[in-house]
Formats: sequence, C-alpha cells, structure tokens
Amino acid sequence: MAGYAISRDDYLRRLRRIEGQVRGLQQMVEDDTYCIDVLTQISSVTKALQAVGLGLLDEHVRHCVRDAAEESPEAGDAKVEEAVAAVARLLRS
Amino acid sequence: MAGYAISRDDYLRRLRRIEGQVRGLQQMVEDDTYCIDVLTQISSVTKALQAVGLGLLDEHVRHCVRDAAEESPEAGDAKVEEAVAAVARLLRS
Amino acid sequence: MAGYAISRDDYLRRLRRIEGQVRGLQQMVEDDTYCIDVLTQISSVTKALQAVGLGLLDEHVRHCVRDAAEESPEAGDAKVEEAVAAVARLLRS
Amino acid sequence: MAGYAISRDDYLRRLRRIEGQVRGLQQMVEDDTYCIDVLTQISSVTKALQAVGLGLLDEHVRHCVRDAAEESPEAGDAKVEEAVAAVARLLRS
Repeated sequence: MAGYAISRDDYLRRLRRIEGQVRGLQQMVEDDTYCIDVLTQISSVTKALQAVGLGLLDEHVRHCVRDAAEESPEAGDAKVEEAVAAVARLLRS
Repeated sequence: MAGYAISRDDYLRRLRRIEGQVRGLQQMVEDDTYCIDVLTQISSVTKALQAVGLGLLDEHVRHCVRDAAEESPEAGDAKVEEAVAAVARLLRS
Repeated sequence: MAGYAISRDDYLRRLRRIEGQVRGLQQMVEDDTYCIDVLTQISSVTKALQAVGLGLLDEHVRHCVRDAAEESPEAGDAKVEEAVAAVARLLRS
Repeated sequence: MAGYAISRDDYLRRLRRIEGQVRGLQQMVEDDTYCIDVLTQISSVTKALQAVGLGLLDEHVRHCVRDAAEESPEAGDAKVEEAVAAVARLLRS
C-alpha cells in the first residue's frame, strides 16, 4: 500500500487531464501555433504536474515518514532523506 | 508560420513520448507505486517538458525576434519582452 | 528551539559565502561583466540558496514534524501541510 | 560594454537589497528562527535573484543578440544558443 489510496481517483483524474493537455500541445505544434502560446501551455502543464507531485509529497510525509518513524528513528530518518532528495529533484527539474 | 517548421516532427515525437510518460504515471498510481518513485517520474516528465520549452524558446528568439527586429526596433523589443515573460512563467512553474 | 541547532554553524558559513557571492555579483555589474556570465553566477547563487533551504526542510521534517506528530496526529498534519506549502513556494521561486 | 549600462544602478540597488536579505537570513539562523519562516525568506531571495536574472536576459537578447545578428546570422545564432543555455541553467537552479 503506497499510502495514497484515499485520493487515488483524484490523482488519476488530474493525470488524465494532464495527458489531454499534452495531446493539446501536440495539436498546437501541428497547427504551427505561435511559440509563445505553446510555451505558456507548457508552463501550465508543468504547474499541474508539480501540483500532483506536491500532493504525493504531502501524503508521503504524512504517512510513510510517520509510519517509518514509529518503527524506528533510523527508519524515519531514511524516509525523510528520501523525501528531501525527491524535492531536490523536483526543484532541479 | 510559427517558425519551428524545421523540427516540428522532433517536437511531436518528444510530446508523444511525454504523453506516454503521463500515461505511465497513471499506471503507477493505479498500481499503488511507492510515492517517491512516482515523484521521480514526475521530475523526469517535467524536465522533458522544459526541454521542449527551451527548444521553442531558442527558435522563437532565433526567428520571430530577429524578423520583428528587422521590421522595426519597437517590434523587436515587443517580441523580446514577450519571450522574457514566457521564461518568467517557465521559471515560476 | 528551531531544531537546527546542530548544524547552525554550517548554515551560517554557507549563508556568509552566499553573501560574498552576492557582493561578487555587484562587482560583476559594476565592471560591466558580460550578461551571460552574470546569469551563470546568479544560477549558482540560487542553487546555493536552494541547498540551504533543502537542508532546513530536512531538519524540519526530521524534528518539528515528528515532534508535533508525537503530540497529536492533528498537530503533525498541520506541520506537514506547512512544510509542503514551503516546498511549493520554493518550487515557484 | 556589457549592454546593460542604462539600468546598472537599478541592478546594483537590487543586488544590495538581496545582500541585505542574505544577512537577514544569517540573523534568522542565529536567532533560531522557525525553519519554515527561514524557508519563506529563502524563496523570497531566490525570487529577487531570478528577477535580476530575467532583467539581464531581457537586455542581453535586446542588445547583444541583436548586435551580433546584425554582424552575421551565425554570430546571432551563437548568442541565441548562449542565452538559451543560460535560461536552462536558471531553470535547473
């Protein structure tokens, strides 16, 4: 159990919308849409993806980190390190 | 003509791959994949989208800005402002 | 106690180096340094600041969130929300 | 001439304010300020730095790229590539 069962449908709904936005980007490129408008749409898709990422991070810290910390401080610390490394990757992307 | 005709196929290919990655994210969520692995994949999709955005930006400055600047300095300046505003949106996303 | 007493000196050392880098940026501007070189240095200072932020985030989750969660699940949840909101601000900056 | 002489004073003023903000961060750490408040201030400094970067980018494209393009298309292209590489570094930072 990955700990995000509660709002899994919400994540799926959002990811399906993002998939539709990416198809919209393909259509924009096929239609020779003005670059700046494509760039604006890319920013919007990126923002939507980051929002999904932040939601997952929230649940990860709320559940996985806490469960691990209850097991042992070392297990909790390992989960924290993993989460912060994931945030670092999000920041660099 | 939006100025990116030359590598339009390359953009489409990349965007189709990104679409596949977003479908992969849906599958990961459906499979209750470990949050951190989903986050890592989100970073990777975001990076791929930003790369498409940087490619478009390159062509925009190379073509649209230059063409506008040949028309008039004011037209060129307007295009530059627009491009920098687009970069600002990318940075904030 | 803010929870980062252990490596406070390390943070201070890093922040003093960042202060020096910002003064270096001023010198670059005064010397009419080539824009792109100034931009590269700005990226480097931003990266150094983000690294300090990630360090603080790590300690925050490790200590404040955990301590709050031991108090009550609600207190823990409030700290998690606060931390994720801080990450969202980092991502948008 | 780096092409940003006109608003050099404005850049210096901003960079001095950023230097003050970085010193403020040091004080916050010395005072054991709550991590999340330090993180919020880090986001704000990062945003201020990015704004300086975007200003420089604007002038770079407006002046250096255009001047180079007038010299030769190849020189213009080289400047564009350099500018887009700088944006990529900003995005990754």
